[in-house]
Amino acid sequence: MPDDEEQIRTLIEKWANAVNSGHLSGVLADHSDDIVMFDVPPPQEGVRGIDAYRETWLPFFEWRAQGAAFELVSLDVTAGDDVAYAHARCCAAERGRSSPTTLRTARLTLGLRKEDGRWVVAHEHHSFPSTDGEDAAA
Amino acid sequence: MPDDEEQIRTLIEKWANAVNSGHLSGVLADHSDDIVMFDVPPPQEGVRGIDAYRETWLPFFEWRAQGAAFELVSLDVTAGDDVAYAHARCCAAERGRSSPTTLRTARLTLGLRKEDGRWVVAHEHHSFPSTDGEDAAA
Repeated sequence: MPDDEEQIRTLIEKWANAVNSGHLSGVLADHSDDIVMFDVPPPQEGVRGIDAYRETWLPFFEWRAQGAAFELVSLDVTAGDDVAYAHARCCAAERGRSSPTTLRTARLTLGLRKEDGRWVVAHEHHSFPSTDGEDAAA
Repeated sequence: MPDDEEQIRTLIEKWANAVNSGHLSGVLADHSDDIVMFDVPPPQEGVRGIDAYRETWLPFFEWRAQGAAFELVSLDVTAGDDVAYAHARCCAAERGRSSPTTLRTARLTLGLRKEDGRWVVAHEHHSFPSTDGEDAAA
């Protein structure tokens, strides 16, 4: 059986493939009911619960249907016996335009816990770097 | 002895107090040499290593010296035996102006591991929500 780090790496890679292929049930398959997601857009206090998490993917899937792609650029996993976290960089690309491919890379952190012997994602934090003048306030 | 969750909560509260009081050695005290920080500003690939992490605080401390404050608004800790993560909201406030106090709240995720029986922060992800038109690409 793969060790915890390998199980988590596989889980996150499957999730990213589901995002890229517009497979919503695959995106949700290994997420906890009580997930707290700090998404790129507001609300500032985060998206809470699997139903609200599901809703956040609908605009992305509309964009994807117009030719966008999503993939992991890097992934680093730190796993204990029953709690783990991972950080990653994700690339979103638009294709099929006359201009060169547009790339935008997000930073992603995930928090996971083991439930009944199975890893689930209980926290996600997605962001782009900010270049506005108030960055020092972070 | 406090349990792991209580130890981590105390560690993060002490770190936030050190940020608020401009106490750089306190900000660094419980961080790993190999920390990876996704800061609010670039670089997109993150700030890597304790020396680079230290440098990120200098602009904040200049801003703080003009009357800014920093505090935790909320903190949620998930701890295993040797790996943990936490998510929080942090408030940065400017004081001493004629206009009302300016508040800005950041989202923060931390990844921790236990080294020689002691918790250390090995990952931080700070961000503000983004409201630009490409949010769906996250």
